Amino acid sequence: MLEIFDEIKEEIKCVERELRLVVDDSDPLIKDTSIHLISAGGKRLRPAFSFLGGKFYNYDYKKILPLAVALELIHMASLVHDDVVDSSLTRRNIPTVKAMWGNKISTHLGDYLFGKSLKLIAGCNNYTISKVLADTSVRMTEGEIQQLYSANSSDQGIRDYFYRIKRKTALLIAASCQLGAVACGAPESVHLPLRRYGHSIGMAFQITDDILDLVADEEKLGKPIGSDLKQGIVTLPLIHALRHSPQRDRLKKILDDGGKGPEDVKEACEIIVSGGGIEYSNKIVQRYIDNAKRQLDRLPDITARHTLYTVAEFISIRKF
Amino acid sequence: MLEIFDEIKEEIKCVERELRLVVDDSDPLIKDTSIHLISAGGKRLRPAFSFLGGKFYNYDYKKILPLAVALELIHMASLVHDDVVDSSLTRRNIPTVKAMWGNKISTHLGDYLFGKSLKLIAGCNNYTISKVLADTSVRMTEGEIQQLYSANSSDQGIRDYFYRIKRKTALLIAASCQLGAVACGAPESVHLPLRRYGHSIGMAFQITDDILDLVADEEKLGKPIGSDLKQGIVTLPLIHALRHSPQRDRLKKILDDGGKGPEDVKEACEIIVSGGGIEYSNKIVQRYIDNAKRQLDRLPDITARHTLYTVAEFISIRKF
Repeated sequence: MLEIFDEIKEEIKCVERELRLVVDDSDPLIKDTSIHLISAGGKRLRPAFSFLGGKFYNYDYKKILPLAVALELIHMASLVHDDVVDSSLTRRNIPTVKAMWGNKISTHLGDYLFGKSLKLIAGCNNYTISKVLADTSVRMTEGEIQQLYSANSSDQGIRDYFYRIKRKTALLIAASCQLGAVACGAPESVHLPLRRYGHSIGMAFQITDDILDLVADEEKLGKPIGSDLKQGIVTLPLIHALRHSPQRDRLKKILDDGGKGPEDVKEACEIIVSGGGIEYSNKIVQRYIDNAKRQLDRLPDITARHTLYTVAEFISIRKF
Repeated sequence: MLEIFDEIKEEIKCVERELRLVVDDSDPLIKDTSIHLISAGGKRLRPAFSFLGGKFYNYDYKKILPLAVALELIHMASLVHDDVVDSSLTRRNIPTVKAMWGNKISTHLGDYLFGKSLKLIAGCNNYTISKVLADTSVRMTEGEIQQLYSANSSDQGIRDYFYRIKRKTALLIAASCQLGAVACGAPESVHLPLRRYGHSIGMAFQITDDILDLVADEEKLGKPIGSDLKQGIVTLPLIHALRHSPQRDRLKKILDDGGKGPEDVKEACEIIVSGGGIEYSNKIVQRYIDNAKRQLDRLPDITARHTLYTVAEFISIRKF
């Protein structure tokens, strides 16, 4: 748990407990695989955002708790299915469900966790929550599908990239920031700025992720450098380098090549960095963070606002 | 479309149209794969049951339509994920999405179709519908997971089998029969007998499916005979034969054997048939059908009741 979330640390403990309870009635195999996933950790960012959002209007953590757990389950379900699709064997330095139990279990486990989230959402008895999350889940898969068929295509534009990361990451974070307030009965004047804040933070978060894939410390990152490149996922630093690097022809050749070895990946990373891809992407991150902060200015000046402000700052300087 | 559903044929046409509209706003790949699935057909049983259920109380097909489409989408999504898991290459004599586009697209397409169903369900603004379908979707995956880890285990009991087919098939059909009436505002005295009718019909339908896997005409069935056996799926006729056939040791040996050839599968089918497995299973089907008919007796004597009665009769005599 990050220190900046101190003000909701008791709530996040409840989320951890509830996540375990949710899968406790399941048969042994579902329970084992789910507990493996839950124990693998994660920052619980989405639950945290939902509680912080709720602080802006008649805060009642009990009203937010099922939503917070549902948000984490949706996130976990999407990760399990991504690991099937990406053939990933580790995540956060821990073997994936796919690696330990195989594709079949992973496909159904993702469906199971998603189903559990629906039960919690249905229990919220709030149409806005149901509608926003239904819409979010459709658009999340649109992003994943676009990522599949645009893989290895080096003529991809910035517009495609933003379409994809909005769906892959920003929409669920936007929903998390918004719906905690909605669960507490907040009006649009409160939950819409929170949603826009979440959207900007989510975009900044994903671009930073894509930057770190190229330049982070491998051990802290928990996966090899250049994983996206290797899988043919086209990210913002790469798009910039493909347009502006003096070595763009060489970069394109590496990208279009089917079997990329570790040396090729390393060379591609270096071309992107020297071609200014990281610098450019950091500028875009900063623009999103500035916008996120502007959204906060529309909200009352409470402790949670300072926390969300700090989160925004943290995203641009995180190193893993 | 089956003739017995004549009374709702216009409604089913609307479902066909809506299914196409639902995926029309998608990007080209999602649209192509979805239209492939929709065009592959299917009996649209679940939508049909939801309209027929609605006939018992203030029938308004417009209130049922989004639910009916959602039910078919949930069914389609589960088929797409099953095909990933089962590595099936054809269904209804047509190549599966997995066969034509691969596992990656199939995993995300299933999530996408399921997400689209959630949007329709959220639009129903009815908490009972949301809760029943959330619960159903969790239990459906429980059934699939149980099927995976019990595969090839010849000491499986009848209780495991019923647990599994209830989740795999009966619950969604039960929900279909119940929720059309719920959408029209029916009280429990109407929608609970419909649910129980659907449950019995669903159980009878799946047991018949499992019988047909062993004895049907391959061409009409659209897949090879003994597919379940080959995949290690333990069904009711097999469970019976494993206990009562004089050749049960030979049957167990074939079942426990990893690589089953076509000759082994054929021999196993013959042992099951001669051991009375089909006869016994047909008796159980009949018991479920009798129970389904008894549930109808609690409902008003309208045309839809006759139709549901005929459906019950049809299930026990269908040949594919």
